[in-house]
Amino acid sequence: MLSEFDLIKQYFKRPRPGRAALGIGDDCALLAPSPGMQMAISSDMLVEDRHFFAGADARMLGHKCLAVNLSDLAAMGARPVAFTLALALPAANRDWLAGFAAGLFALADQHGCELIGGDTTKGPLNICITIFGELAPGHALRRDAAIAGDDLWISGTLGDARLALAGYRKEYPLDAAALLAAGARMHTPSPRVALGMALADARLAHAAIDISDGLVGDLGHILAASKVGATLDVDALPAGPVLAAQPQALRRSFCAAGGDDYELCFTAPRSRRDAIVAAAHASGTAVTRVGTIDAAPGLRLVDGAGHALDLQLAAFDHFASA
Amino acid sequence: MLSEFDLIKQYFKRPRPGRAALGIGDDCALLAPSPGMQMAISSDMLVEDRHFFAGADARMLGHKCLAVNLSDLAAMGARPVAFTLALALPAANRDWLAGFAAGLFALADQHGCELIGGDTTKGPLNICITIFGELAPGHALRRDAAIAGDDLWISGTLGDARLALAGYRKEYPLDAAALLAAGARMHTPSPRVALGMALADARLAHAAIDISDGLVGDLGHILAASKVGATLDVDALPAGPVLAAQPQALRRSFCAAGGDDYELCFTAPRSRRDAIVAAAHASGTAVTRVGTIDAAPGLRLVDGAGHALDLQLAAFDHFASA
Repeated sequence: MLSEFDLIKQYFKRPRPGRAALGIGDDCALLAPSPGMQMAISSDMLVEDRHFFAGADARMLGHKCLAVNLSDLAAMGARPVAFTLALALPAANRDWLAGFAAGLFALADQHGCELIGGDTTKGPLNICITIFGELAPGHALRRDAAIAGDDLWISGTLGDARLALAGYRKEYPLDAAALLAAGARMHTPSPRVALGMALADARLAHAAIDISDGLVGDLGHILAASKVGATLDVDALPAGPVLAAQPQALRRSFCAAGGDDYELCFTAPRSRRDAIVAAAHASGTAVTRVGTIDAAPGLRLVDGAGHALDLQLAAFDHFASA
Repeated sequence: MLSEFDLIKQYFKRPRPGRAALGIGDDCALLAPSPGMQMAISSDMLVEDRHFFAGADARMLGHKCLAVNLSDLAAMGARPVAFTLALALPAANRDWLAGFAAGLFALADQHGCELIGGDTTKGPLNICITIFGELAPGHALRRDAAIAGDDLWISGTLGDARLALAGYRKEYPLDAAALLAAGARMHTPSPRVALGMALADARLAHAAIDISDGLVGDLGHILAASKVGATLDVDALPAGPVLAAQPQALRRSFCAAGGDDYELCFTAPRSRRDAIVAAAHASGTAVTRVGTIDAAPGLRLVDGAGHALDLQLAAFDHFASA
């Protein structure tokens, strides 16, 4: 019989000391940002059948639930420091816990991000992480900082996670190899932490957001917060390797409004183009210019020739979609 | 149709600016502790049918889910600053949201604690709050700081929440008035934030914990972390007003191992007795001395005459109990 306290001790408490003045095992953890720094804080809750399939691989889940939180830090340009984990589990299954902890800590260790506390309870599977990063005041990549004339950039590639979902749902035929390759993108996203930090540290970008609900919807948050518009060249969007081999209509749709990409969408002055390419290279992340920020409100989708495109797209909304 | 973004805007985003440099609406919130201070951080997850009954009053739930987190700050002696809220909801029901937000913000405002971000999603009802307080370094009331010879203290009263649960479950007959009075203690606990801060600020106490899973179990965490034992006078435990009118066996059991009390259990040197009573008075919270910390390991339960008591008690464990 695995008790709540044994569960935490065996799977989540690690011997090695980290940045926190006090970690797992008291009523609160104690943590201070480096002198003069702000903390960037984000919470994400992942629910079975909503954010992942029932029976999803535990190791993958451990990776993904931390990855989506690291992606929020990346979108602000913050350095990861620590996180809390609250976990509702139908049962305390040792194999599941070992796999989940392995996936979680493998990614946490890559980013020097320490588990400092949390909660465990019995209940329908639900994983809630709150993550803490740090940032110099004034350096955050905020949604409200885009300026007309800025270039619009995308990190990495888009659409393979959405393509995998279409394959799993049998909405679109994918052979086993394609589904495996696209599925890896859906299950184990790579948060663009190094790129975000480089953009913020050197003040290369104005605004940024991470693409979780689909580019068009997420870019819309930057436009609304910054009170600007944009022209987006849909054919310039960098499709993931599996999606790149599919028909144009699918490429356009899944790049522009796929979701689960965890790439960065950011805006930056034209004068920073070379510095951005250099920073992207140094952080091992591709970047692509895909449009411009305009003074006129609204998002204009255009094709490679600059002609208006009328795509029927919708951002993902947890309460609108069934 | 209430979208995810409308839901946040209508029910959770508030016009008045708080301590955070950036609140709800970006990838992360930005928050810095006051210069020189540490952040105390705690997460609690509340699940339907586990921590509260299905169909529980939304306003009460809004209060309780924040109260249990404030209680963790109180147990460290930290000043509440801010919190994030992650919410999985079966549906976006306006009445439920309005009630929940009212209960949540009424308590948050009492403690100057600002909602700075979070997440909402569709799913089985699950409420996860991560709370942030601040503390001067070295002032935290830690579980590992009890010293042999310390007095053992309890704030407020114990057992009425457990008595209400027994009443709701028909394990024990309670008339409607008694159930209503005891139920209030279960549904709307009062976190002992002012007392915890007073104890930490003036360094009056050594160790502290909040009583959520039952005194004997929670005190056990102090004893284990501090490598000490204790003698607990079960008949000195301050029973809640409804429990106080019940038979002795029930009083002893529910005071010693009730759960859901959200009182503080703390240890302090004998030399601080007068200062503690004065601090308790100033913070509007009763305190009672109920035993002593011993060098010999183990917890010894005694009656009012000092004779050993053999109570069959078990702390609440989320995975041990069905």
